Amino acid sequence: MSTEYVPPKVWTWDKESGGRFANINRPIAGPTHEKELPVGRHPLQLYSLGTPNGVKVTIMLEELLALGHKGAEYDAWLIRIGEGDQFGSGFVGVNPNSKIPALLDRSGPAPVRVFESGSILFYLAEKFGAFLPTAQPARAEAMSWLFWQMGSAPYLGGGFGHFYAYAPSKQEYPINRFAMETKRQLDVLNRRLAESEYIAGPDYTIADMAIFPWYGGLVKGWLYGDSATFLSAQDYTHVQRWADRILARPTVQRGRMVNRVSGEPSSQLHERHDASDFETKTQDKLAAKG
Amino acid sequence: MSTEYVPPKVWTWDKESGGRFANINRPIAGPTHEKELPVGRHPLQLYSLGTPNGVKVTIMLEELLALGHKGAEYDAWLIRIGEGDQFGSGFVGVNPNSKIPALLDRSGPAPVRVFESGSILFYLAEKFGAFLPTAQPARAEAMSWLFWQMGSAPYLGGGFGHFYAYAPSKQEYPINRFAMETKRQLDVLNRRLAESEYIAGPDYTIADMAIFPWYGGLVKGWLYGDSATFLSAQDYTHVQRWADRILARPTVQRGRMVNRVSGEPSSQLHERHDASDFETKTQDKLAAKG
Repeated sequence: MSTEYVPPKVWTWDKESGGRFANINRPIAGPTHEKELPVGRHPLQLYSLGTPNGVKVTIMLEELLALGHKGAEYDAWLIRIGEGDQFGSGFVGVNPNSKIPALLDRSGPAPVRVFESGSILFYLAEKFGAFLPTAQPARAEAMSWLFWQMGSAPYLGGGFGHFYAYAPSKQEYPINRFAMETKRQLDVLNRRLAESEYIAGPDYTIADMAIFPWYGGLVKGWLYGDSATFLSAQDYTHVQRWADRILARPTVQRGRMVNRVSGEPSSQLHERHDASDFETKTQDKLAAKG
Repeated sequence: MSTEYVPPKVWTWDKESGGRFANINRPIAGPTHEKELPVGRHPLQLYSLGTPNGVKVTIMLEELLALGHKGAEYDAWLIRIGEGDQFGSGFVGVNPNSKIPALLDRSGPAPVRVFESGSILFYLAEKFGAFLPTAQPARAEAMSWLFWQMGSAPYLGGGFGHFYAYAPSKQEYPINRFAMETKRQLDVLNRRLAESEYIAGPDYTIADMAIFPWYGGLVKGWLYGDSATFLSAQDYTHVQRWADRILARPTVQRGRMVNRVSGEPSSQLHERHDASDFETKTQDKLAAKG
């Protein structure tokens, strides 16, 4: 198949390699340029993009607002990762890992930075006392599935998705390795959802909000071209049923619009600063249909 | 370099492929055989193996015991993943994802199962009120770094480690991709530890316990053959300093022995049921030296 590659003794950076994301993947961290982040009028400032990781948080914020938690009002600012916004000094100050989403909570005496989507979901659940059970064993179950998503999705996104859809050439071994693991993960979820209404039990929790944008998106055919066919996504019937149910929530539909830069223009709310921002988009949609 | 591979329309399982872990990587979840788990006399039953993910938890348990938390007494049972123990029905009942570590807490009226190493660390921190700040912003900082480890290490272990050390042949693109990301992650940590004594601030927390076995192990040369040379691990001086400091803790040294099945026989405590189990091993070590 291929000539055996012999790695050098010490790895060095070849800036020309790397495929579609060569311009944003780097072996060094830290800021590349000075740039302050914008700050709006709400306590919560979200710096994000409408990817599966970003959508987790906007779904949670819309859920909290729908429950009446006015303290969850937020400004969502667009971070264009293809243009390197995540390497600006202001963003790195909120997330030293230069990945979206990143949250700044300015409601208290000292601002609180929160990074990693799972950490943001937990932070908001704890702050507002919502979507995370306080009693055991329900709490441990929700947290275990939340951590499961964080540790598993890199195999789906950085593994399968990258090699199936984005790498400069198709390679059998990595595609095979990560397709197998992604199917195993889908089966883990499918078996769990065969016996449980939601991931962590009878109640909808942050574990569902974390898992839905990745694995729900995968079975709905939103990710990586024809990967749903490739992975036989139709076979995971309990995941499909669960994804349909979550997708029916207006909060989830709003959350999916925020910081979105692809798809129908009427589905893209690049920045969100007020609940009325969604209404404007809905009017756009009706006008486009009309 | 290689002929372009054209994936089939629908992926199917070729049981012959997969390299060193072909026998334990599967595209389906669930148990392969009926097998109950053993249960010892302590409230906490740990089912694990002395890998970086397993060691996180045994370090935490030894830290809690050293602080005087008698409720953290535990039985540590060996799960030999190369022999498929993780696919036994009892283990799958505790962790439906069939990965170590898995914890069963039998101290309350109903047993609590906890899986994913990050979730177990959080569970124990919350249960015993230790190694996780309760005030903000320190709490969010510790949780963000804990989630950072869970979302980042798959690129180190399942990405870099697999393609550098375990895949059936060396392939340049995956090695390059994951080496670059691993170096970026090391630089994220190095910059953080240049300004902070521990990962989340002045105090040692579960974030350190999660990150040390992977990134500390990497810079100490414990993982993946000569990968420390390949990744220029000596350059990450703050990570080195921090790893040395953590490694000096007797609790960490004990935690690293539990469920360990490689290295010096005197460093391997296959099962741990009592604090005196370590003393026996220390006597073995002295006898071997003597």
